[in-house]
Amino acid sequence: MSENLTMKIIREHMISTADNVRPGEEVLVKVDHTLTQDATGTMAYLQFEAMGIPKVRTRVSVSYVDHNTLQTGYENMDDHVFLQTFAQKHGVYFSRPGNGICHQVHLERFSEPGYILLGSDSHTPTSGGAGMLAIGAGGLDVAVAMAGGPFGMPMPKVVGVKLTGKRQPWVAAKDIILEMLRRLTVKGGVGKVFEYHGDGIEDLTVPERATICNMGAELGATTSIFPSDHITLSYFKRQNREKMWRELGPDEGARYDELIEINLSELEPLIAQPHSPDNVATVRSIQGLKLDQVCIGSCTNSSFHDLAIAGHVLRKKRVAQNVQMTLTPGSRQVFATIARNGILADIISAGARILESACGPCIGMGQAPKSGGISLRSFNRNFEGRSGTPDAKVYLCSPETAAVSALRGILTDPRDFEGDYVTEKEPEVYDTNDTGMIIEPSEDPDSVEVVRGPNIKPLPIRGPLEEKMEGKVLIKVGDNITTDHIMPAGSKILPLRSNIPAISEFVFIRVDPDFPKRAKENNGGFIVAGANYGQGSSREHAALAPMYLGVKAVIAKSFARIHRSNLINFGILPLRFADEADYELVSSFDELIIDDVQKQLQSGSEIVVRIGSGREIKTVCDVSERQRNILFSGGLLNHIKHSQAEEGSTVTQSAVEAAGHLGESTMVSSNGQFRPGKPHEVTSSGRKDGESA
Amino acid sequence: MSENLTMKIIREHMISTADNVRPGEEVLVKVDHTLTQDATGTMAYLQFEAMGIPKVRTRVSVSYVDHNTLQTGYENMDDHVFLQTFAQKHGVYFSRPGNGICHQVHLERFSEPGYILLGSDSHTPTSGGAGMLAIGAGGLDVAVAMAGGPFGMPMPKVVGVKLTGKRQPWVAAKDIILEMLRRLTVKGGVGKVFEYHGDGIEDLTVPERATICNMGAELGATTSIFPSDHITLSYFKRQNREKMWRELGPDEGARYDELIEINLSELEPLIAQPHSPDNVATVRSIQGLKLDQVCIGSCTNSSFHDLAIAGHVLRKKRVAQNVQMTLTPGSRQVFATIARNGILADIISAGARILESACGPCIGMGQAPKSGGISLRSFNRNFEGRSGTPDAKVYLCSPETAAVSALRGILTDPRDFEGDYVTEKEPEVYDTNDTGMIIEPSEDPDSVEVVRGPNIKPLPIRGPLEEKMEGKVLIKVGDNITTDHIMPAGSKILPLRSNIPAISEFVFIRVDPDFPKRAKENNGGFIVAGANYGQGSSREHAALAPMYLGVKAVIAKSFARIHRSNLINFGILPLRFADEADYELVSSFDELIIDDVQKQLQSGSEIVVRIGSGREIKTVCDVSERQRNILFSGGLLNHIKHSQAEEGSTVTQSAVEAAGHLGESTMVSSNGQFRPGKPHEVTSSGRKDGESA
Repeated sequence: MSENLTMKIIREHMISTADNVRPGEEVLVKVDHTLTQDATGTMAYLQFEAMGIPKVRTRVSVSYVDHNTLQTGYENMDDHVFLQTFAQKHGVYFSRPGNGICHQVHLERFSEPGYILLGSDSHTPTSGGAGMLAIGAGGLDVAVAMAGGPFGMPMPKVVGVKLTGKRQPWVAAKDIILEMLRRLTVKGGVGKVFEYHGDGIEDLTVPERATICNMGAELGATTSIFPSDHITLSYFKRQNREKMWRELGPDEGARYDELIEINLSELEPLIAQPHSPDNVATVRSIQGLKLDQVCIGSCTNSSFHDLAIAGHVLRKKRVAQNVQMTLTPGSRQVFATIARNGILADIISAGARILESACGPCIGMGQAPKSGGISLRSFNRNFEGRSGTPDAKVYLCSPETAAVSALRGILTDPRDFEGDYVTEKEPEVYDTNDTGMIIEPSEDPDSVEVVRGPNIKPLPIRGPLEEKMEGKVLIKVGDNITTDHIMPAGSKILPLRSNIPAISEFVFIRVDPDFPKRAKENNGGFIVAGANYGQGSSREHAALAPMYLGVKAVIAKSFARIHRSNLINFGILPLRFADEADYELVSSFDELIIDDVQKQLQSGSEIVVRIGSGREIKTVCDVSERQRNILFSGGLLNHIKHSQAEEGSTVTQSAVEAAGHLGESTMVSSNGQFRPGKPHEVTSSGRKDGESA
Repeated sequence: MSENLTMKIIREHMISTADNVRPGEEVLVKVDHTLTQDATGTMAYLQFEAMGIPKVRTRVSVSYVDHNTLQTGYENMDDHVFLQTFAQKHGVYFSRPGNGICHQVHLERFSEPGYILLGSDSHTPTSGGAGMLAIGAGGLDVAVAMAGGPFGMPMPKVVGVKLTGKRQPWVAAKDIILEMLRRLTVKGGVGKVFEYHGDGIEDLTVPERATICNMGAELGATTSIFPSDHITLSYFKRQNREKMWRELGPDEGARYDELIEINLSELEPLIAQPHSPDNVATVRSIQGLKLDQVCIGSCTNSSFHDLAIAGHVLRKKRVAQNVQMTLTPGSRQVFATIARNGILADIISAGARILESACGPCIGMGQAPKSGGISLRSFNRNFEGRSGTPDAKVYLCSPETAAVSALRGILTDPRDFEGDYVTEKEPEVYDTNDTGMIIEPSEDPDSVEVVRGPNIKPLPIRGPLEEKMEGKVLIKVGDNITTDHIMPAGSKILPLRSNIPAISEFVFIRVDPDFPKRAKENNGGFIVAGANYGQGSSREHAALAPMYLGVKAVIAKSFARIHRSNLINFGILPLRFADEADYELVSSFDELIIDDVQKQLQSGSEIVVRIGSGREIKTVCDVSERQRNILFSGGLLNHIKHSQAEEGSTVTQSAVEAAGHLGESTMVSSNGQFRPGKPHEVTSSGRKDGESA
């Protein structure tokens, strides 16, 4: 049977007795790469530490610092130092603050076609641009993967996205993914992998493909992926990593569960309007909008080409007086490159404010717009309040649209720019000297002391599943609630990511400032929600902090994938309304009771919930056996500890495997020889360099 | 009589009937230039607005944005937009965020030898490097100056600082001012102007001279100044402003009140240790100290040479793994220059984190070190907690020492660097196109609407002086209390500078977290302090916020100049212990009573204070008649309003003058023709281009 690329990679990494896993059923895969960033990383490493394993068992694990870089208090640098020393002690590469945004740097320096990357950041799919199956997950899933355990996910449907034709000038990769969002909405990718193919992919460089994969996260997709082809090879050559390239693609005539076709030549510049990435219009249709701020950067659009086109547009011109413009390069490599060839000088001279290479304004880490301000950004998310200004209106577009609009001070279709579409040439080979910037694990880990500042608090862990659950509906929310609603980020809250008691005081505060108080006063309770609950970032704090506040179950019409896993990992029941209409029957402050939870969960997926008034509603908890056991234990970390207790020993590889029901024979092989930028042989199970799987 | 440069400029600007003003007596001068930054500017412009004058009456007034640039909430950009629109409406130049640090940009684009600059920032003396008499003051003083009123200050003693010899390689201008601080301490400059002269000044470029003048603020000096000579001319040529240069210096054999001599050839690299700029040692004597952070930048050391030497040191090397290094260019001009010639690329490649051109970490606006971290900075202040980390230890040094130490990871004498002391050549002419970056006042001010976001709250104003003052000693503090102690800055508090009720909740909180609560519960009261109370920044919020909390008087052994003026401007009595030993007689929570305050103040400088127990102590309130009247009115703004009420009209030029007892004939001439970067004739009273006054 002609196989698509996604299934090839999954099949090669699958750990399962079942021959045929159907879409939606849980599949366990082994993980080759992991990445963390600092906002999710401290917790993930504390969880890894709780497993008692001295050294990561992945092919390569990298710890990045890109979120908490403002450092308005000691907390951020305390975390950085913890991460750096932890990485050195436990076999993890550490990318220093200033070295760049995790996804951009991973793409540049670590990505490998055909491997699986699990990252504790929802935009991990970025490396799909280089043919990786790159998946975002909660920090605890990443911790388990670092410990050598498998990653469980619903077997995705594979959607073939056939690109044909060639873009017109000023039409960007960003416009392709905005077109996908326009067609499919933020719920359209749930349970799916988008596999791009067709002649049109020839029109896209690896960083452009990465833009598309990156923002595929906004579709709710498991991930997105491009084949590894001659364009990928030329990218690897520029990165001085051609030895790590191999050709990899779908079989001729590969089958897909669904098909989408986009004719690139018909696309025009698009824009996502407030407050959702799928609220897409053509730039032309709303042009003229007066702007207060324009921001170029973020993991979506901060590679060389993105900044080069901005430099070309801005050269010898000035940003309009009503606009504050910022630029955040994606990596030190990109930053140094544009600093060498004059692009950066042009951008500075034009009046843009240059921010360090990090996530920055995209996560509300500075550069909050003025009250009610209009901000045009080359970023991936425009959720309400995420910019740091509650009533700001954020629009998402390509760097092309952003740069041209910054000059005019109003939203402008970039095709109206009075100049050709040309950019500074990309270097044949980038500066790929990572020495001292991507710090290798210590060769003498015993000598490394992990430094823990006062911001790093122990992990809270809940007890095993109750016999009977009862409590109030603490909050009832609508559709498409994001993890930003549940656990806001931004410059004031993100620094508390290593301190659950402190950060819990901010759960839902932008929706309902009394939520934390009410949750504590009522000794926890339930959350009721509409469809696509928990979309957006991968932050497990959106499960961990509610768990700390006593939330026992979330009853929703549907869940976003990563958040649902996070709920399970932290022992919160994810219950789906069997009949969506029942959503109307439950109100805030209703008393809910679930009798015999364990028994109900044991005997099937149906869970009956009694509303205080006496009425009953049916909900569904469609979990795998592994997930059911995790819920019984009160969360994944408990579950691993139980497995370990049953063995009567300290946490071992087999305990971690037991948590994932792995046999000895399926252990993930670890390759200590991996060095970024240094050629090496691919030695993991059954593959050789250059061999097409 | 052979006159020194300082006295020439003061004499030319003096508004006084007295022939001979002795040091310490108040002298009133007219002000040519004003500058504000955003943290002090919003309040200064609200005060200017309260005077009802449509257009500034200075030669040139500039509004800069450099403090609140992190924008972690809407407050900062709201302030920026207020400042921008206010400037356009009221005849003020507006330097956009990203255009650079006020002092660096003023030096580059506006400084004029022989003129008086009054700035609402304590480091305003920076322009003394170009022969200006540049003085820091509270925002209200600057507002009055913008309204055409005079500036009153104690007539300073002029200290001649004779520089001889030539520095050894790796000895920086910073080391000269550190040597001054070593000899004189942070109290050594109170009431003094330091006038540098001697053959040694030939060894110093204008930016190097500016470094020395800038950090002269740490001596407590009124200001510092260098002559305008051929080196100044070459600087003005590079700035494309040679028409604004004129030769200006002391007369041959000029007399000084005091003399200091420094032989530059004997100097070696110096460092100020925690937590005071005068805690100076040689780098050699404490070298080897392990560092966590190195920061280059700030208004003291962020000009071309400072960053060029850093680039030279870092080229093709890497910042040590234990160090986080940051670089903040002083201005867009400097930033673009190093981005064009490869210096910036070298610094990025070396692993430094590049921050936007602004004050940044110097004012705790980001980059707080880790808990207990050691931070080495090319800045001017190392007060405890100012970095944003309460227990961090901050050391101050030259960019040379900072860069070499960043490579080694330990404090290192830069003379140990394994390379020559050479740098990239300074451009013959910088990019001096300010169009659109320094926005000119509107030609149609009526069409400009001043935009006020929700962070901009009305000014609180106190009533006239009481008949009898009584209240508790709310706090008793020691010597050298800084304005950072009184009114902390940092990323969380600075954004509230336009909102006095909100910012008042932070008065003294780093010294005594209960202060604001206690002050309000007791309906205000007194502050008792040691020597040099209120040193450091010019922030008038250190007087305004205590006034808002009901503070009636501060009794101290001595006061820093700017803060003392601010206390008077906001109607708080600055009382000096007649006998310093009496400091011991007053305790926290003592009840103090001052009977017949008005009568006592009217009849002389002695003010008797009764301590609740019955004992009396004598204090001195040595104010000028003008200041006495301000205190009677309950502050300067009240005083101006009273003058206006007496005239039965809206605030007028003469009302402002009345506040300063000016006659019609002494009106400050306004020159609407001033354009930065554009040659113009100097037309103000009695001077011509090139004429030495």
